[in-house]
Amino acid sequence: MNCRHAIMQHSIWILLLLIAGTAGAQPAYKGEAAPKLTNQATWIWYPGDFEIWLGNNMQNRRTERGSFFPPFWKLDNHYVLMDFHKDVEVTEAEQIEVLVEGKYILKLDGKGYEGMPQQVTIPAGKHRINVKVFSRDNVPAIYVKGKTIASDSSWLVTYEDKEWIDETGKTSDISATTWLNAGSWNFNEPAQRPSAFRLAVQPQSAVTTTKDNGSLLVDFGKETFGFIKLHGLQGKGKLSLYYGESKEEALATGTCETLDRLEVNQGSKTDSLMPLTKAFRFVNIQAEGGATVDSVSMLYEYLPVANRGSFRCSDSAINKIWDVAAYTLHLNTREFFIDGIKRDRWIWSGDAYQSYLMNYYLFFDRPTVSRTLMALRGKDPVTSHINTIMDYTFYWFLGIYDYYQYTGDKTFIRQFYPRMQSLMDYCLSRRNAAGMMQGLPGDWIFIDWANGLSKKGEVSFEQLLFCRSLETMALCAGMVNDTKNAALYKQLAADMKAKLFSIYWSDAKHALVHSRVDGKPTDNVTRYANMFAIFFNYFDSTQKQLVKQHVLLNDAIQKITTPYMRFYELEALCAMGEQKYVLNEMKSYWGGMLKEGATSFWEEYNPAKQGAEHYAMYGRPFDKSLCHAWGASPIYLLGKYYLGVQPTSPGYATWVAEPVLGGLQWMDGKVPTPQGDIEVYCSTTQIKIKGSEGTGTLRFKSQKKPVCKGVVINSKGNNAYEMTVEAGKEYVINYKN
Amino acid sequence: MNCRHAIMQHSIWILLLLIAGTAGAQPAYKGEAAPKLTNQATWIWYPGDFEIWLGNNMQNRRTERGSFFPPFWKLDNHYVLMDFHKDVEVTEAEQIEVLVEGKYILKLDGKGYEGMPQQVTIPAGKHRINVKVFSRDNVPAIYVKGKTIASDSSWLVTYEDKEWIDETGKTSDISATTWLNAGSWNFNEPAQRPSAFRLAVQPQSAVTTTKDNGSLLVDFGKETFGFIKLHGLQGKGKLSLYYGESKEEALATGTCETLDRLEVNQGSKTDSLMPLTKAFRFVNIQAEGGATVDSVSMLYEYLPVANRGSFRCSDSAINKIWDVAAYTLHLNTREFFIDGIKRDRWIWSGDAYQSYLMNYYLFFDRPTVSRTLMALRGKDPVTSHINTIMDYTFYWFLGIYDYYQYTGDKTFIRQFYPRMQSLMDYCLSRRNAAGMMQGLPGDWIFIDWANGLSKKGEVSFEQLLFCRSLETMALCAGMVNDTKNAALYKQLAADMKAKLFSIYWSDAKHALVHSRVDGKPTDNVTRYANMFAIFFNYFDSTQKQLVKQHVLLNDAIQKITTPYMRFYELEALCAMGEQKYVLNEMKSYWGGMLKEGATSFWEEYNPAKQGAEHYAMYGRPFDKSLCHAWGASPIYLLGKYYLGVQPTSPGYATWVAEPVLGGLQWMDGKVPTPQGDIEVYCSTTQIKIKGSEGTGTLRFKSQKKPVCKGVVINSKGNNAYEMTVEAGKEYVINYKN
Repeated sequence: MNCRHAIMQHSIWILLLLIAGTAGAQPAYKGEAAPKLTNQATWIWYPGDFEIWLGNNMQNRRTERGSFFPPFWKLDNHYVLMDFHKDVEVTEAEQIEVLVEGKYILKLDGKGYEGMPQQVTIPAGKHRINVKVFSRDNVPAIYVKGKTIASDSSWLVTYEDKEWIDETGKTSDISATTWLNAGSWNFNEPAQRPSAFRLAVQPQSAVTTTKDNGSLLVDFGKETFGFIKLHGLQGKGKLSLYYGESKEEALATGTCETLDRLEVNQGSKTDSLMPLTKAFRFVNIQAEGGATVDSVSMLYEYLPVANRGSFRCSDSAINKIWDVAAYTLHLNTREFFIDGIKRDRWIWSGDAYQSYLMNYYLFFDRPTVSRTLMALRGKDPVTSHINTIMDYTFYWFLGIYDYYQYTGDKTFIRQFYPRMQSLMDYCLSRRNAAGMMQGLPGDWIFIDWANGLSKKGEVSFEQLLFCRSLETMALCAGMVNDTKNAALYKQLAADMKAKLFSIYWSDAKHALVHSRVDGKPTDNVTRYANMFAIFFNYFDSTQKQLVKQHVLLNDAIQKITTPYMRFYELEALCAMGEQKYVLNEMKSYWGGMLKEGATSFWEEYNPAKQGAEHYAMYGRPFDKSLCHAWGASPIYLLGKYYLGVQPTSPGYATWVAEPVLGGLQWMDGKVPTPQGDIEVYCSTTQIKIKGSEGTGTLRFKSQKKPVCKGVVINSKGNNAYEMTVEAGKEYVINYKN
Repeated sequence: MNCRHAIMQHSIWILLLLIAGTAGAQPAYKGEAAPKLTNQATWIWYPGDFEIWLGNNMQNRRTERGSFFPPFWKLDNHYVLMDFHKDVEVTEAEQIEVLVEGKYILKLDGKGYEGMPQQVTIPAGKHRINVKVFSRDNVPAIYVKGKTIASDSSWLVTYEDKEWIDETGKTSDISATTWLNAGSWNFNEPAQRPSAFRLAVQPQSAVTTTKDNGSLLVDFGKETFGFIKLHGLQGKGKLSLYYGESKEEALATGTCETLDRLEVNQGSKTDSLMPLTKAFRFVNIQAEGGATVDSVSMLYEYLPVANRGSFRCSDSAINKIWDVAAYTLHLNTREFFIDGIKRDRWIWSGDAYQSYLMNYYLFFDRPTVSRTLMALRGKDPVTSHINTIMDYTFYWFLGIYDYYQYTGDKTFIRQFYPRMQSLMDYCLSRRNAAGMMQGLPGDWIFIDWANGLSKKGEVSFEQLLFCRSLETMALCAGMVNDTKNAALYKQLAADMKAKLFSIYWSDAKHALVHSRVDGKPTDNVTRYANMFAIFFNYFDSTQKQLVKQHVLLNDAIQKITTPYMRFYELEALCAMGEQKYVLNEMKSYWGGMLKEGATSFWEEYNPAKQGAEHYAMYGRPFDKSLCHAWGASPIYLLGKYYLGVQPTSPGYATWVAEPVLGGLQWMDGKVPTPQGDIEVYCSTTQIKIKGSEGTGTLRFKSQKKPVCKGVVINSKGNNAYEMTVEAGKEYVINYKN
């Protein structure tokens, strides 16, 4: 058997090192030899592969009391063999630099160069440049840069080129190879090898250090994340570092969640950096034997993303909540959107889904959303729900729906549509005889952490998310011109929506009931399906009012204690104009955590608890995460339902702003969009608005007639007004109540 | 979100190195501390994962004139996160050593130990030992050894344990986790880490060295494989090493297939080993500048497998053919069964299929067969045929059929049945409207290297292999109690067999025709489907005779020029009792290569060619492989059709020996079986036979009545006799013609 690509070779003399085994090593980049170039090159790879690889590295860094603590679902891997190519046309001969992560062959018009050249000259004319890379440990990636030629997402990639030949040496011309656009991020410099990716770090000092008999209790003043650094380490003995998100945790050496241990045998003073990052505010360093430490600092580790969104208002408590929420989200926005920085430090689809939404109002960092979606999805075959949780599979689809709406990124949809399809196929194959989603062995029905919440039978909440996922599939199928399946998904979604009402809607309860067991709807009403059906707009206006009264504002319905589901509950209320009520809820719930001394928002908060009781969860005294992404939802609520900004077509081509003060005297903020910001100021007498892209519609209510110089404001009746906001122009609307 | 496995931890004090970044490093094995143990432990992993990983390493080591030359199909990868467990019961506390490739957590009864301990004590009683490992670069693997506890294939493994908890910390009890038995090979010592696997090496000297003006032409006397070693390398300059399977190739510096280049700057004399293995008999070392070499030797690289099978006979030409065939197969039996040692050095399913069969008559090395089957299959999803070739997918199924028959290894079938199913699903999904296999874009229809061979439409040969593959699936489905699919596959196979005859059998041609195009059977008759239908026993005895006369022995039918298809052609003739004819064919075809100076058998041989013409293929002067596994088929033919031994039930539980001299005066040989050998001596007057396992049936023909002391020999009429051969007993049957 034989296969080859080319007969003639470009001859290049390559240095083969004399030491056995090094011939396959990667070439060092000769930075000094690189010519000054004008176009933008970036490291590229197979889309999703770097993200999966990075996800594996990150999600396998968690420890618990010194034990390695990996995830319990399947982790996929990158394709080890990758073919990159680009058809170029150059008017004059051009030298290109070629950097590769892995062993490779570089080909020009199908003819391979000898060895692994780092610099070749592309003659004038039309050519195909091709780099085929094998890399087992890291993701095959390339960086190509010439005067006009540059590796970027216009390069095509495949993991199976299927270029066989016949016995005469002729290459097959019936290929069914699928080519995708290359993936990339921001590795724009030759030296920024993807395999060397690290988050940014910055030294930070402790706020207070208490020494006691050779031991130290160090307080960094607020929740933080990074590497502890010991200064002036000396002597012979053992050190234990007990980390605490609370002081109580750091002092509880037998039950704190994370720790490090060191054996010290150090004649002269030295500094030592702990090898693994931890989440903490306090560190309690206990010495055994003769080891001593002078002082302690840290390297703060973070993803460099800026707060593009902002919010300030007349209520300082809300401003503080916004700030702490922003810090909480920033700490949890890392290689990916993770759940919590102490625990689990994994990518959970349901948690990440909320981070996506908050991100659109804070960082608008598109790559962290797509990276997280790619890492969560992994690869085929699908062997379980995402994170093993049925609802989390559905949140993945919902995340794509929103991603497209906020960013307008069609390429992502086009490239990942096959993986969307195979995940949906998995769901469809697991429907029960009634066509409903019901837990099968191996399926975790999560919904929320709530006492006694039933997961039995066909839970209405799961059907509702399933329905929305099918709508997402219909949308995406349409985008990739898969008309047959677009129609199929649309029909399935319509069927499911009809079932939602025919099975679960109770006229007696004025709400959707929680589940159907053995063919009979239960009597139980929970908030979950009902609140989602409001902002999914599945209810008509009568149903919405009934649900608001009989469920959302009904204390007899089991209360939600996680910020996770508070997110949706408050969103549903905002979507029904209850901003004033929600503002008070924010102040009491998130404000309540702040009063307990929180410096970041928690995984769960029950105001009835006292002191260190707050830190317990899952049967352990300090297992609760005190910095959990889902605690940061005020960012989203304030941006979307107070400043009131959201896209109405993909990528903010059109958008709406409906500012609602909700009892505030004034508010002033920015909502980021793909290419710029939308700035909104609103007081009881004035609105100022400016959008830097797309066409906006400003909607507001006013008792008095509003005035804006040179602009037509349309009255919509009932004190409602509407006007168009053109990109780049600032509008000042004045009125007096 | 939260998940954990255990609340309490076993406390162990672990040294955390002071150097940042080393905490995740693998523990070194303390060999000196290991107690002397009596039970057999071995390194274990997820079945198929080491094989895929090793396949990637091996198949990405090929170069062609100094260019990296990787495969063109998808390469899969190992699961990076793996859970191993074993339920044990020990009567007294027992210390175990734990070695792991990767980061890990060791748990006892669900409770994790702190750190990554290499030694723990298991208390008396029943326990579950669990090791969960993350390893990105190498395959997660463990080695556990105590007095009674040992890691072996009885341990269970999974890549998704799905152990989530509820809010109280209770672990889920509705798991659908699939556990497989761990995979292993022969890494029975703690220090034999799977990631460090290397083939064996052995220094070998050159036979002649010709020096000319600083250059050297070195001849190792026969085809070989390994690393070239330069002795006394000195000076400043460049060296080029041009390798040749023939002298002509080594001298053709511009067109030889493989080469190495070195830049030398060496003050005092040194020895240097080339980093990459090559296949060669000759090496031509050309110097530029002032570099000099005193002498050249090599490190021969090989898989240590012994020739358990043997064959000696009255014809020395046949003996020589057998020896060279055995050497050829040995050279191509490496990490896997590869096609050729110069080229492609990849695992090709069709080539490997023949190696499996030869192997059963030479090494009987079960692991190399299963390793090759696993590496070829890779993982789901199936995105193309194996090696992109439709026929090669089918050979994979056929290989499993034979593997089970020869080895009786049910575990392999049970564990890989899901991958068999998904590959068959891929085939079934690609049938055309008539339910036939026809090439779609991306499918390579190979069949054979033969001038003008049509691949159009529905090729009879592909349907025939498909039919046999379906029969294999039916067999295996039955073995794993998948009765529903067993019936389905059986029916599909029967349908396909019926179609084979209704569509392709031509009464006019007395044969199956080559193909059907646009619904019409073609007139063309080729040997392929016809010869396979003989030894698959698809033909009735009349059809067999017709096909023998009108196809196999008909010079008007296009001749086969590859040893690849000669294998099956000669097998078909042997299956019809034409051993005498085949013996002459062997002597002329394989004997012909020997007369041309072959020291191993070739990829292709055309007696009409002259001198160096023999070395050309694929449009290149030296592209033909002169050591190709498929050239070694006499081993198989002589074992199976002359000594006449084959299993009649899985793993040689029962077997048959039908010795046929085919014109020889005598022959004497061994056929290996799972636990022993079957020894056969046969002359014109005597048969001696001894089998070390199973129950054999000896069948032979004799003009005179045969006699065997104390044994009943049943006459079957027509000079045919049959007797039972019990394990461990030697039988001597005498007769005079």
